[in-house]
Amino acid sequence: MTTLPLAGTGVTAARGFRAAGVTAGIKASGTPDLALVVNDGPALAAAGVFTSNRIKAAPVLWSQQVLKGGLVSAVVLNSGGANACTGPLGFQDTHATAERVAEALDCNAGEVAVCSTGLIGERLPMEKLLPGVDQAALALAADGGEAAAVAIKTTDTVHKTASATVGGWTVGGMAKGAGMLAPGLATMLVVLTTDAAVDSPGLDAALRAATRTTFDRIDSDGCMSTNDTVLLLASGASGITPDPEEFAEAVRAVSADLARQLIGDAEGASKDIRIDVTGAATENDALEVARSVARNNLLKCAVHGEDPNWGRVLSAIGTTAAAFDPDSLDVAINGVWVCRSGQTGDDRNLVDMSPREVVITADLHAGNATATVWTNDLTADYVHENSAYST
Amino acid sequence: MTTLPLAGTGVTAARGFRAAGVTAGIKASGTPDLALVVNDGPALAAAGVFTSNRIKAAPVLWSQQVLKGGLVSAVVLNSGGANACTGPLGFQDTHATAERVAEALDCNAGEVAVCSTGLIGERLPMEKLLPGVDQAALALAADGGEAAAVAIKTTDTVHKTASATVGGWTVGGMAKGAGMLAPGLATMLVVLTTDAAVDSPGLDAALRAATRTTFDRIDSDGCMSTNDTVLLLASGASGITPDPEEFAEAVRAVSADLARQLIGDAEGASKDIRIDVTGAATENDALEVARSVARNNLLKCAVHGEDPNWGRVLSAIGTTAAAFDPDSLDVAINGVWVCRSGQTGDDRNLVDMSPREVVITADLHAGNATATVWTNDLTADYVHENSAYST
Repeated sequence: MTTLPLAGTGVTAARGFRAAGVTAGIKASGTPDLALVVNDGPALAAAGVFTSNRIKAAPVLWSQQVLKGGLVSAVVLNSGGANACTGPLGFQDTHATAERVAEALDCNAGEVAVCSTGLIGERLPMEKLLPGVDQAALALAADGGEAAAVAIKTTDTVHKTASATVGGWTVGGMAKGAGMLAPGLATMLVVLTTDAAVDSPGLDAALRAATRTTFDRIDSDGCMSTNDTVLLLASGASGITPDPEEFAEAVRAVSADLARQLIGDAEGASKDIRIDVTGAATENDALEVARSVARNNLLKCAVHGEDPNWGRVLSAIGTTAAAFDPDSLDVAINGVWVCRSGQTGDDRNLVDMSPREVVITADLHAGNATATVWTNDLTADYVHENSAYST
Repeated sequence: MTTLPLAGTGVTAARGFRAAGVTAGIKASGTPDLALVVNDGPALAAAGVFTSNRIKAAPVLWSQQVLKGGLVSAVVLNSGGANACTGPLGFQDTHATAERVAEALDCNAGEVAVCSTGLIGERLPMEKLLPGVDQAALALAADGGEAAAVAIKTTDTVHKTASATVGGWTVGGMAKGAGMLAPGLATMLVVLTTDAAVDSPGLDAALRAATRTTFDRIDSDGCMSTNDTVLLLASGASGITPDPEEFAEAVRAVSADLARQLIGDAEGASKDIRIDVTGAATENDALEVARSVARNNLLKCAVHGEDPNWGRVLSAIGTTAAAFDPDSLDVAINGVWVCRSGQTGDDRNLVDMSPREVVITADLHAGNATATVWTNDLTADYVHENSAYST
């Protein structure tokens, strides 16, 4: 993959896009809270994946309908309020937001996707949000990707952008939050853009493949948001139709970059934990085992305490239905095989737990399939941040 | 239920049992760490339920075999080491422990159940444990139930006993730990005894029914131990064969009492959280929803912060496959219906979160089935206790 100098960063790295991030006053903190991303074409192709939580926020219900048409002219995103569990009036608020964007940009409201993130169960301050839309429309710029990425932050400590340029086309994007299947209070919102000429079905295939092995495999705390949204918009402004596999790989690479940034900024975390499961009978088995380990609070505490407690890993593996023989399990922590054949292996004192990144490898000795899931340690800071959120 | 004065407490509340708790030196702390419970008959009927974790400790594998025979003369329990993931040599240690008990009591080693709790992956110090067995056999007493309950503590701050006397027979018991499907580092061990004349299949039926709605419905941190064991032993010393339903209810009541004590003493907890799900289409639906809410780290943090954050409850419900309409969900926190019809209900400021016990009620409006699950809040103390465990 060749990386070339780019006009903008994040969602404006690809040609044919403008973006803005402004302070509408939705957040009490007075920091930027409204972002707008506009596709200037010539194409308006788009694809999206959304939370599998059955309690879906109004903007998710709206955007799912928009994406069925396969065309997106603009995406408007707000932090400072999730607009979830707000009933029919909350849905009207989302609709009104899309209409205001359509007015400001002279496009069709049915082609405006909406994303929201923040506290559940409260209506959005529309008297601030709607003027914010007008303000953002005026601020749109070909190098506005960074401002947009800043405006969607909630508890994120840094904004997240990434891009990859292959031949004459680019995939770029921005993200906020701390997980997909598992965002904390931080819903995950991602907008990816490309100037490649790819139609909506092609975008959908690339996005689903990328999400399956990136955003779907970060799991900061096992909790699933009502608002998670990942969008991919194509302007076709490069005039180039890429090889589908090459395009899918670029989307995957940018998604993986953003996913890694999300885990690195998860709430209260002091360690990033990569769980590699190898030797599984199937990829699903590998994934079930990796997720079970990733969601084990006791292990997450042990890693926080820099304790190579492999018993926690085995206990977690034992709760799954994956194919394995308990007496054949091997577990390594940061490369030291502390558990061999289901019992004590190499000296646990050889494990260096001091790096920020901790790698746990579990070999099931049941086949050749593998999977990797990322998570974080469980810390007193996580407890503090999430016990003092809405009050 | 009539409660009469009892000879002993806990496992010696019922006639026909002796018990002891001694310091064998297994624990570095020098506190009691070995308990022995002996059934003096005339009957030796028994039943047991064990962890569903596929990684089972040596004492679980051994005791499962013992219980297949339906007869138990004695139970030996040690704290200070789980004897899990210790391979064939660990299993030999369990076997040798049972043999030593059989020698000391002149009974059949195949009728000696063994329970262990403590760190995974380390061999037990048999040179200390085996003399401890002899010491415990000498200390056996008809009022030894309390000493036995003390000797099985690990991170428990108090020992737990309970009993119920109905007509002329008694059910008593002791417990340690913090969960069943969900013990922390604290494996759950429970020994129940009765002087009622009930055969092994009758005990098994009563025990499974009781466990299903008590120990199986406490979930302190979603983690499942390799060592969980619940045993019920009947001496028949009362000479009375009770009505099966009355007997089952007494076993359930004692189990519920012990389960409530376990939740009240869970690691680092500052709140006990009861989750009542009502209006479910089936009991399984109610249970799935209750467990999902109980395992939501974000909700557990919010309760710790005394924040009536009902959005966390809805997010958790939304991850289940239970029958419900998102727009029909009602949620109450300590009696205040803060969420009605899937959106903001009564004023959240009316909720008093200050009591130790917090009750969350979710009405699915999908039927008449109900279920209750108990859990705890997630605290910095939990993180501290579990990040500094083995090191």
